[in-house]
Amino acid sequence: MKQPLIVLMTDFGVRDPFVGLMKSVIWTHAPGVPIVDLTHDITPQSVREGAFWLRTSEGWLPPHAVVVAVVDPGVGGPRRALVVESGGRVFVGPDNGLLGFAASKVSARSHAIDLTRLGLGVPSRTFHGRDVFAPVGARLATGRLAPTEVGPRVDDLVASPIPEPEVQGERVKGEIAVVDRFGNLITNIPWPLARATQGRGVLVGGEIVTFGETYSDALPGGLVALENSFGLVEIACRDASARERLALSVGAEVWVIGQDGS
Amino acid sequence: MKQPLIVLMTDFGVRDPFVGLMKSVIWTHAPGVPIVDLTHDITPQSVREGAFWLRTSEGWLPPHAVVVAVVDPGVGGPRRALVVESGGRVFVGPDNGLLGFAASKVSARSHAIDLTRLGLGVPSRTFHGRDVFAPVGARLATGRLAPTEVGPRVDDLVASPIPEPEVQGERVKGEIAVVDRFGNLITNIPWPLARATQGRGVLVGGEIVTFGETYSDALPGGLVALENSFGLVEIACRDASARERLALSVGAEVWVIGQDGS
Amino acid sequence: MKQPLIVLMTDFGVRDPFVGLMKSVIWTHAPGVPIVDLTHDITPQSVREGAFWLRTSEGWLPPHAVVVAVVDPGVGGPRRALVVESGGRVFVGPDNGLLGFAASKVSARSHAIDLTRLGLGVPSRTFHGRDVFAPVGARLATGRLAPTEVGPRVDDLVASPIPEPEVQGERVKGEIAVVDRFGNLITNIPWPLARATQGRGVLVGGEIVTFGETYSDALPGGLVALENSFGLVEIACRDASARERLALSVGAEVWVIGQDGS
Repeated sequence: MKQPLIVLMTDFGVRDPFVGLMKSVIWTHAPGVPIVDLTHDITPQSVREGAFWLRTSEGWLPPHAVVVAVVDPGVGGPRRALVVESGGRVFVGPDNGLLGFAASKVSARSHAIDLTRLGLGVPSRTFHGRDVFAPVGARLATGRLAPTEVGPRVDDLVASPIPEPEVQGERVKGEIAVVDRFGNLITNIPWPLARATQGRGVLVGGEIVTFGETYSDALPGGLVALENSFGLVEIACRDASARERLALSVGAEVWVIGQDGS
Repeated sequence: MKQPLIVLMTDFGVRDPFVGLMKSVIWTHAPGVPIVDLTHDITPQSVREGAFWLRTSEGWLPPHAVVVAVVDPGVGGPRRALVVESGGRVFVGPDNGLLGFAASKVSARSHAIDLTRLGLGVPSRTFHGRDVFAPVGARLATGRLAPTEVGPRVDDLVASPIPEPEVQGERVKGEIAVVDRFGNLITNIPWPLARATQGRGVLVGGEIVTFGETYSDALPGGLVALENSFGLVEIACRDASARERLALSVGAEVWVIGQDGS
Repeated sequence: MKQPLIVLMTDFGVRDPFVGLMKSVIWTHAPGVPIVDLTHDITPQSVREGAFWLRTSEGWLPPHAVVVAVVDPGVGGPRRALVVESGGRVFVGPDNGLLGFAASKVSARSHAIDLTRLGLGVPSRTFHGRDVFAPVGARLATGRLAPTEVGPRVDDLVASPIPEPEVQGERVKGEIAVVDRFGNLITNIPWPLARATQGRGVLVGGEIVTFGETYSDALPGGLVALENSFGLVEIACRDASARERLALSVGAEVWVIGQDGS
């Protein structure tokens, strides 16, 4: 039997009671279903960051998880609310690109939520996390509602905003996708793609940072480019913050330089 | 059968292990009972803010929830510890006004916690969240303890400190009750009360902010007064922080101006 | 029957999805097992602070809890991963002193985790919280894995870095071990040890702070040394932050002065 479980990801923070209210609604509909807080500290309204972390985390989420993701600058407007079946999991969230990576899989099927059909009433204009996504996610988790029952099948979803790396000759162009708590700069470049260039490192912020295997391959205060725990190129600064050291933030260009150093 | 569930709200933050210790005690007494963290970031010792958020959130908390609320500047002193039955839910917390909104309902019944009767031993002087409210809440959630059994019935509770709006002729005087993560200014004025004035907006921080329906009714960087997801008047700044834009904080006056603009 | 339960403590913060991924892995292996977040805001890489809070909290953790603790600056290097049975609980974490207090108990037994024996595959170099400690902790919690089965018995663990107070004649020398959210300075000096000196207070930051029973034993803005909820000497400032008032931080010396004031 499938073990019901909900994964939550939002940009609500945990300072205000917004996440607590989502859980209250979830547990009103699905008492005690386990809830994983993936993170609630997505940069406010950054669909791109939310989409990136969700895709990057996906492989470790429990099979059959119902993933409720809310980064929703268009709340209250005409954007659709979605349920996407993808890879054994079910994703619930706004149609703004956040779930695009999941919906673009060959076997994925997406449906738009029809509030009337579900008898959910009129939601508030600004808090669909509580009024739409939480109750729909809860009913899906319990199995009382099937993804195909939430509303009409849709295929014209907003595409994923996650930036993809580009191979340009012997080089790979990518960018800093997110920065973690420790100031490590996480790029959108898969490690195998970077290593395939047979280059010796990356060009970022005007500096060449050589590849290493662990943080300790750099001198204290020095930089290293390594494979992080998600299989991506990450630029780290030993015992310090690479973000501060390079004064860079999300979106900055990162080049994997080729074998000849160009 | 009632599904046991505990809702926690405190001003402890989550940086220190205080909330984790409350949960450890709860799960020692009531293994695995679901716990919702409403928020732990109430401004330290602000009973008023805690009471406001609790009352505002109440309608979405699961029926039969046991709500353990700890904002407790008087801990260790003579203030009583309470269990309040109200509206199908049970509230546990200090007698300092935090639970006043719940206790003031006609059908509510309040009891003072008698530690000796409950065999709880001598609590620490500074952490009744762990030593009193957590174990009492846990026993109430499991049903092993009834609210009427915790101690004597009491009726002379400290009143709620939540500020109430005042109707003054065609105008309504209220205040900023809380500020959320996004810098939205949440007032204590119910939207229907504000609209009943047939006025065109609110006067706040020397500016007149007109009513709108969504954030997008303002120009980028502009202000709008709208109905928020709790049915209250909220002052928001499109794509920015109203708090910063108006340089205002909790307690600042807000006037709903009348139909003639006065 | 033992009620399975996991306690988590890390220095990962909750801004990034690292803790959410640990829980995802735990619930993949042990669906729905209750998880207490003791704290995830240990100062990054401070094994000493993590060890202090863990030992200080231990008495309130549920009996039979599986405690997964990750403060792990040596991740990816040669440091061992441990499972320590101690006092009815099971501790899982790196061999860097974090679990030293638990392992040093007379009846404690420690084993080093053998990933190959457990069929866990090759972990990432930087995130053993997700790849080693979470799955091992989950299997221990369900009882499918016994502590003695994880790998070889070991006895030469890295010792605890928790600083111990020293009795010097009539005085006791200690230090500020952690500072809480409110700016209270929590020392490593047990209250009974301090009181045994029959002295009248502590010398800290060049000031003598007299003993009291509650925060209200100080004037507003004044300092007091009292027994905190963990049975330790704590220096607090009424209605303010002792850290800011004294401009001190972790590691600063604290002396309990003797009866003659020396």
